[in-house]
Amino acid sequence: MTQISTNSRIRELALNAPFIQQIGMEIIEIGSGWITCEIVIQPEKHHQQNGFIHAGVQATLADHAAGCAAATVADSHITVLTVEFKINLLRPAIGERLTCRADVLKAGRSITVVESNVWAWQAEQSKLVSKATVTIANVTQ
Amino acid sequence: MTQISTNSRIRELALNAPFIQQIGMEIIEIGSGWITCEIVIQPEKHHQQNGFIHAGVQATLADHAAGCAAATVADSHITVLTVEFKINLLRPAIGERLTCRADVLKAGRSITVVESNVWAWQAEQSKLVSKATVTIANVTQ
Amino acid sequence: MTQISTNSRIRELALNAPFIQQIGMEIIEIGSGWITCEIVIQPEKHHQQNGFIHAGVQATLADHAAGCAAATVADSHITVLTVEFKINLLRPAIGERLTCRADVLKAGRSITVVESNVWAWQAEQSKLVSKATVTIANVTQ
Amino acid sequence: MTQISTNSRIRELALNAPFIQQIGMEIIEIGSGWITCEIVIQPEKHHQQNGFIHAGVQATLADHAAGCAAATVADSHITVLTVEFKINLLRPAIGERLTCRADVLKAGRSITVVESNVWAWQAEQSKLVSKATVTIANVTQ
Repeated sequence: MTQISTNSRIRELALNAPFIQQIGMEIIEIGSGWITCEIVIQPEKHHQQNGFIHAGVQATLADHAAGCAAATVADSHITVLTVEFKINLLRPAIGERLTCRADVLKAGRSITVVESNVWAWQAEQSKLVSKATVTIANVTQ
Repeated sequence: MTQISTNSRIRELALNAPFIQQIGMEIIEIGSGWITCEIVIQPEKHHQQNGFIHAGVQATLADHAAGCAAATVADSHITVLTVEFKINLLRPAIGERLTCRADVLKAGRSITVVESNVWAWQAEQSKLVSKATVTIANVTQ
Repeated sequence: MTQISTNSRIRELALNAPFIQQIGMEIIEIGSGWITCEIVIQPEKHHQQNGFIHAGVQATLADHAAGCAAATVADSHITVLTVEFKINLLRPAIGERLTCRADVLKAGRSITVVESNVWAWQAEQSKLVSKATVTIANVTQ
Repeated sequence: MTQISTNSRIRELALNAPFIQQIGMEIIEIGSGWITCEIVIQPEKHHQQNGFIHAGVQATLADHAAGCAAATVADSHITVLTVEFKINLLRPAIGERLTCRADVLKAGRSITVVESNVWAWQAEQSKLVSKATVTIANVTQ
């Protein structure tokens, strides 16, 4: 499978999910074993009651990016499903956009483990706001 | 503080967050140390690419309900912030609505631990689809 | 397979591990989908520097009991392996013994999720000191 | 406080715990915000029933090293306590020794988050066998 066809498959996986469209996640770049994604923040949509970006937005970004990263190293007939994830919210997430880099830590036959880091950007400065470890099952259709 | 004023405070906490309004979370019932919440599922909004309810929807519900449950046992001048959570997706989430029950496991002075169970409902049958453990910091403003 | 042969298999699994012998874990009772285990605490062996029972002792008990609980619902040719676990230490663990009850939350073909609760006993009073969620892979030999 | 006195404090914290002495953990090097530790593996002591190093050994190393790393950036009157940790067992742990590097991800006033990586060494080759994220409470005595 060429890298181009992998990338199209991942883009489809990443962007065809209604909840991902709702939340406004976009892909920045895809490589073998990793992906970077972005959400442009709209306060009236992504915030919690105190002006910070909601943990659920960060978790959705970290989880979905992890699934995409896992898919970059899986055969095309494999479906990736999140088994579980854990996310630490390291500091208040404030800013105009979130970016996430998801990296495969270990690609196994049936299980792939991915690490996702999420940064909040404000005035071109970024801060690491959350970090997730995601366990993905590789399921044969 | 009366139970009525606690409940109003929790409702405000729960429902004033823009992302929670976006996702359509509603409160069903509030008690001391617990809360039950609900999201009526709209496939074009809450699904992932395969017709299941997105893990991010479940995680947002589990996390936000946990924060509300923690707030029911915190003083009114305390702000609850999620430090981290871990969620296991136990089976595909399929159905017309999700309900979540969040229960305080341990209420501490500075840290409260909450457990959230999420069920998917289809044709009046429910299945436990995910379970989260959430660590909450109690922060004095 | 009879319950008796399952139980022998689990006892072998549980007690043949050198580290488990070192730590002194014993089985109290086994059922289908659950197990209860115990460690009699020796301060000069199981404590941390401050007189509490070390988190590593609790984690080992929670993880190993979870593997045994998963094995009670797996075919006899399946090997259970921990993929990951998360443990919340809810309060200082003080006492003469720890008990753990591990319950299968969801038994899948390739993945089983188990919940372990750990109690510390002092003068016949027990306190829930930690709670773990454990993801187990069912591997065909 | 000088680096030398910090290091003595950490060594005392690290090595005075009976369970840590039992398990044979040693410190290799200490810096500000990080520590490296080691366990020389004795099969008759640290293994599980299948010849791999027990998850409980890895978890104890990852957790205890994390507490030490957190202590390197805490004031000397602060006690560090593990609130929770999550560990992914990435591959079977086989070898003559385990090493762990724990790095502070975020040092807060009341909570510090640490990441621990554990490698197994065999014939001078190392493999990353597990990775933990540890949430530590900084408690004033």
